[in-house]
Amino acid sequence: MSVVVRNPPRAGREAVDELGRYGVATVHEAQGRTGLLSPALRPVYPGAHIAGTAVTVSVPPGDNWMIHVAVELCQEGDVLVVAPTSPSEAGYFGELLATSVAARGVRGAVIDAGCRDVAELQRMGFPVWSRYVCAFGTVKETLGDVNLGLVCAGQHIEPGDVVVADDDGVVVVPRLRAAEVAEAARTRERKEAALRERYARGELGLDVNAMRERLEGKGLTYVDRTPDE
Amino acid sequence: MSVVVRNPPRAGREAVDELGRYGVATVHEAQGRTGLLSPALRPVYPGAHIAGTAVTVSVPPGDNWMIHVAVELCQEGDVLVVAPTSPSEAGYFGELLATSVAARGVRGAVIDAGCRDVAELQRMGFPVWSRYVCAFGTVKETLGDVNLGLVCAGQHIEPGDVVVADDDGVVVVPRLRAAEVAEAARTRERKEAALRERYARGELGLDVNAMRERLEGKGLTYVDRTPDE
Amino acid sequence: MSVVVRNPPRAGREAVDELGRYGVATVHEAQGRTGLLSPALRPVYPGAHIAGTAVTVSVPPGDNWMIHVAVELCQEGDVLVVAPTSPSEAGYFGELLATSVAARGVRGAVIDAGCRDVAELQRMGFPVWSRYVCAFGTVKETLGDVNLGLVCAGQHIEPGDVVVADDDGVVVVPRLRAAEVAEAARTRERKEAALRERYARGELGLDVNAMRERLEGKGLTYVDRTPDE
Amino acid sequence: MSVVVRNPPRAGREAVDELGRYGVATVHEAQGRTGLLSPALRPVYPGAHIAGTAVTVSVPPGDNWMIHVAVELCQEGDVLVVAPTSPSEAGYFGELLATSVAARGVRGAVIDAGCRDVAELQRMGFPVWSRYVCAFGTVKETLGDVNLGLVCAGQHIEPGDVVVADDDGVVVVPRLRAAEVAEAARTRERKEAALRERYARGELGLDVNAMRERLEGKGLTYVDRTPDE
Amino acid sequence: MSVVVRNPPRAGREAVDELGRYGVATVHEAQGRTGLLSPALRPVYPGAHIAGTAVTVSVPPGDNWMIHVAVELCQEGDVLVVAPTSPSEAGYFGELLATSVAARGVRGAVIDAGCRDVAELQRMGFPVWSRYVCAFGTVKETLGDVNLGLVCAGQHIEPGDVVVADDDGVVVVPRLRAAEVAEAARTRERKEAALRERYARGELGLDVNAMRERLEGKGLTYVDRTPDE
Amino acid sequence: MSVVVRNPPRAGREAVDELGRYGVATVHEAQGRTGLLSPALRPVYPGAHIAGTAVTVSVPPGDNWMIHVAVELCQEGDVLVVAPTSPSEAGYFGELLATSVAARGVRGAVIDAGCRDVAELQRMGFPVWSRYVCAFGTVKETLGDVNLGLVCAGQHIEPGDVVVADDDGVVVVPRLRAAEVAEAARTRERKEAALRERYARGELGLDVNAMRERLEGKGLTYVDRTPDE
Repeated sequence: MSVVVRNPPRAGREAVDELGRYGVATVHEAQGRTGLLSPALRPVYPGAHIAGTAVTVSVPPGDNWMIHVAVELCQEGDVLVVAPTSPSEAGYFGELLATSVAARGVRGAVIDAGCRDVAELQRMGFPVWSRYVCAFGTVKETLGDVNLGLVCAGQHIEPGDVVVADDDGVVVVPRLRAAEVAEAARTRERKEAALRERYARGELGLDVNAMRERLEGKGLTYVDRTPDE
Repeated sequence: MSVVVRNPPRAGREAVDELGRYGVATVHEAQGRTGLLSPALRPVYPGAHIAGTAVTVSVPPGDNWMIHVAVELCQEGDVLVVAPTSPSEAGYFGELLATSVAARGVRGAVIDAGCRDVAELQRMGFPVWSRYVCAFGTVKETLGDVNLGLVCAGQHIEPGDVVVADDDGVVVVPRLRAAEVAEAARTRERKEAALRERYARGELGLDVNAMRERLEGKGLTYVDRTPDE
Repeated sequence: MSVVVRNPPRAGREAVDELGRYGVATVHEAQGRTGLLSPALRPVYPGAHIAGTAVTVSVPPGDNWMIHVAVELCQEGDVLVVAPTSPSEAGYFGELLATSVAARGVRGAVIDAGCRDVAELQRMGFPVWSRYVCAFGTVKETLGDVNLGLVCAGQHIEPGDVVVADDDGVVVVPRLRAAEVAEAARTRERKEAALRERYARGELGLDVNAMRERLEGKGLTYVDRTPDE
Repeated sequence: MSVVVRNPPRAGREAVDELGRYGVATVHEAQGRTGLLSPALRPVYPGAHIAGTAVTVSVPPGDNWMIHVAVELCQEGDVLVVAPTSPSEAGYFGELLATSVAARGVRGAVIDAGCRDVAELQRMGFPVWSRYVCAFGTVKETLGDVNLGLVCAGQHIEPGDVVVADDDGVVVVPRLRAAEVAEAARTRERKEAALRERYARGELGLDVNAMRERLEGKGLTYVDRTPDE
Repeated sequence: MSVVVRNPPRAGREAVDELGRYGVATVHEAQGRTGLLSPALRPVYPGAHIAGTAVTVSVPPGDNWMIHVAVELCQEGDVLVVAPTSPSEAGYFGELLATSVAARGVRGAVIDAGCRDVAELQRMGFPVWSRYVCAFGTVKETLGDVNLGLVCAGQHIEPGDVVVADDDGVVVVPRLRAAEVAEAARTRERKEAALRERYARGELGLDVNAMRERLEGKGLTYVDRTPDE
Repeated sequence: MSVVVRNPPRAGREAVDELGRYGVATVHEAQGRTGLLSPALRPVYPGAHIAGTAVTVSVPPGDNWMIHVAVELCQEGDVLVVAPTSPSEAGYFGELLATSVAARGVRGAVIDAGCRDVAELQRMGFPVWSRYVCAFGTVKETLGDVNLGLVCAGQHIEPGDVVVADDDGVVVVPRLRAAEVAEAARTRERKEAALRERYARGELGLDVNAMRERLEGKGLTYVDRTPDE
């Protein structure tokens, strides 16, 4: 049976937008090193950085019909999340669909399959993270689901969860944890800014983090070699 | 036996140049979703878009001698198509060969193996689509064939066929179908331009393509969830 | 047992800097087609070109503690070379470590695993060649070795060896051969500049390299086809 | 935080054992073509066929400590399901752990990482499905979770769900759907037995399934070629 | 448009059966080191060795409808050759289809995608070479072609060509070259039997093939090391 | 320059034969979790287990000439170790070479490339571990090296080192450490035998290894769920 959930609850806009101020690596650490999608997903062009609420689309291999169904349910601030039920290189998403969802305020797409029209997507400034770039189009024959939980690139994503994506990859934050993770990311970001300054001045991680004693306790041994050896 | 065909028939220049005005995805659809090379072939730099007539070179693994043989047979408007007889990461093609074929009016190269000197190729503006970027050079010991039909990245290509390549990948159009496919691509392009405009205005694919009834017939079911669930 | 060698001998600066004037493909040829790391290592952003002396770090899977140990031993002109003892996609290296080693004059990093914060690395101009881009961080629990010989992306590298990296990949030159290889690269570069000029004028590799007779001897056969076939 | 759930609800034994009478392909179809783990998981020896209730173990890369924690919670009829939080080739499971869980009635293991001692496992008759065979051992340094939901080879699995595995792969059936899917599989199996008999007698799928008219409607065209062409 | 060619010419039975007496490696060498399919195709169980005439089936991704169409056209001595138009892991072929084609005298199948029911196929003795083993089934929605030329695992195959397959892989011999290649294989086999005997007696390839002088001419240098070095 | 070292020192026979009594996983642990070759190397048939002294052969891509050179230098108890200078799927080794080296007492081969004639190798009982099974043969055109150190599947191997291989993979033990590692493996084996017995009786790793306190200290938390939840 094919199901479309019209209006799932979404994470609050404030938390989403705050999460969008931090990089994927920071958010991933901030929520306890969980939620990272496979690094096989790559941005189709460099330099994009988004956060938004997931509209999830489960699609058959080589068939993008359900993305058309999903467009109607997209709202400003959403991110389209597409996963095929079996692996597919096909180009599920291109310029036309991007034009359609951009008109509704969608911020980007995450596709565990192929994407096409990547030059046009860069020109439009509509970012996509995908497993493949592939001109092979899809058909419109078989149903799937919209806004049910799904597994995308190795992570379970529920509709309304927050998706953050940048040049380092894609991370999902569960809807109900969005505010808490945003705060943890802010704290982490501040701590890293302080560290960055100290490192830039030449201080060492060994000293800044007081690692020397613990390293010695584990048995670290230093050996000298003369330069003319 | 090693064979070099000096002057195979080529697709007509007019059709080739018209095909070059359309993206790979459009051309692929226009000829009935056939002819796409494996998406494992990627451009060595972004933003190039070419169409040309294939000069085919079948090479032994790790040996690019036959490319030197092929250079002499290249004409203005050609694209070099190179496929090894068994898989190889080696860098078959670099700046020197690019200089040589660019001097003869060749528009680019498609290589189901490695390519090198990619920074120089970008500086020259000579685009290559390849499976690997690899500095490992080749030897000049063993013969192959030039301008016989071959399989490159999963597609059969005859010399004189049209090769179209952009950021989405590479597609081959058989020589004798070039004019017909160019026309189909033009038609498709026009149709897509109209769609793009409607999508940009916020119209939905569901309505534009009258999909609602067929979706319902297949059993699509809409379910509501309250936002505060 | 975990060992850190404080001050291994390094290749001479002059040879290192001269090697940095030649591309990876040229250096690889100049030392007899050896020393190339797997093309699976890719630059995290295009356009960088470095040469430096290796500081080698052998790390456990998913644990970058030893990189912090290595930072203290880095000198101006070094390149960090990191290899995990079993394959790992984790992001061993990011903006903070880059800030720290850049402050010591390190020229870049080569990592047979993941790298993160790639947008920031590009902004800083600190180049990294890695197998993956991955936001997944590492822990600091288990020891490894610094400045022992290791295998990185298929090549044996000793501390103090010269590492050259550009858009074509990464090559290692043994410390004691640095001067000799730099000279061979210079010779090769000059020869290629001459060839480039002749090719740009339209001369053929077949003639420039006097290949025709040898090709004929191997049995190369030319066949004509009429254009209207 | 690391959590171990001591005694999650499990699918009923009767349904589990009935599911074990059907192949993975049949169960997969019977539950609507869902729940199949990635075909990258392969049996470490051919010929095994099991069904059991999942004990789920989320492990850090290269660390199998939590499997020791999970052993104590295993019951007769369980299947161990292990997924690392980031990809790892390491051999998380071998003869010793197999001896330990076999003593408690565990029927097999599914590991989205490496497995070792495969010759001994075959001798013992303890089947494992894994992504790699790899002698590289693991450490016992970092915590994970036992009996929380996890993603294994692309599927979400809850503790107590039914895992069915044979030479074709691994499929998960949600705990609460076990009885219903077992019945659907039984129905499907009967239907296939009838088909098999008709096919063995030489009847055609085209006739048995009355496909000819629908094929013609879609535009299928038959063409004759004379044998001596 | 979808086309089914009813009765393409087939290679002569005598040549086919003689080719089946030689291994894939021998046949591949005998026809000049051409025609080998990608080694990514593996037998689903070890020990099978077949030769037969190709019935070619071009299928959409995840859709095996056309295999049912092809069954009717199969004759005794054929081999089913299936290639999807874009990559697919789906299990296109299993026990039921095997029962159906075995009833018509088909000798095996070669599938550039997934295969399922592999335990049953081994029990039946119906060999399949495929890229994946995968329980994921297919639908019957979209047309393809039967008995047109296609590219399968990197080789162009025409209907009626001879396909030889064993534990080393799969090779295709063009229909019109079957007799000539069979004879070359017979010659090669005899030569190898003689070599095998000499090698088993301890003679060296260096002497049997008179390689020493040519090696010396190329610059091979022997160096001694004392055992106690 | 191409070099052949005639008679490198080899590890002592006694240590080699003792190492052959332990599995690869045991030897790998016994030498401090080092020396494991990539798990991409797999046995061409199951059930073999060997140990021997390495004869190393560095070969050009697609060219096995140097293996013929190496045969003459093989002694009873050796293992052939072959690595191409750039990746190659070609079948470097088959029945004829196996017959030749088996006649000299060689125990098996490890090849970081392709192997062919695998059915015959199993019949002969000559085991090979390789990255690919591939019928594609090689040429005899270009020189390489015999008995120099090389990198094979990610590990540095010197001639005379001990290679141990079984169904779990391949591990190398440096020549001068052979006796020490053999003894460590013996100790480990005894310890594991004792553990195996305790596990078979139902004792838990948690108790046998006194892990409970350390787990608690790291923060492990147990939670109960009622069965009828």
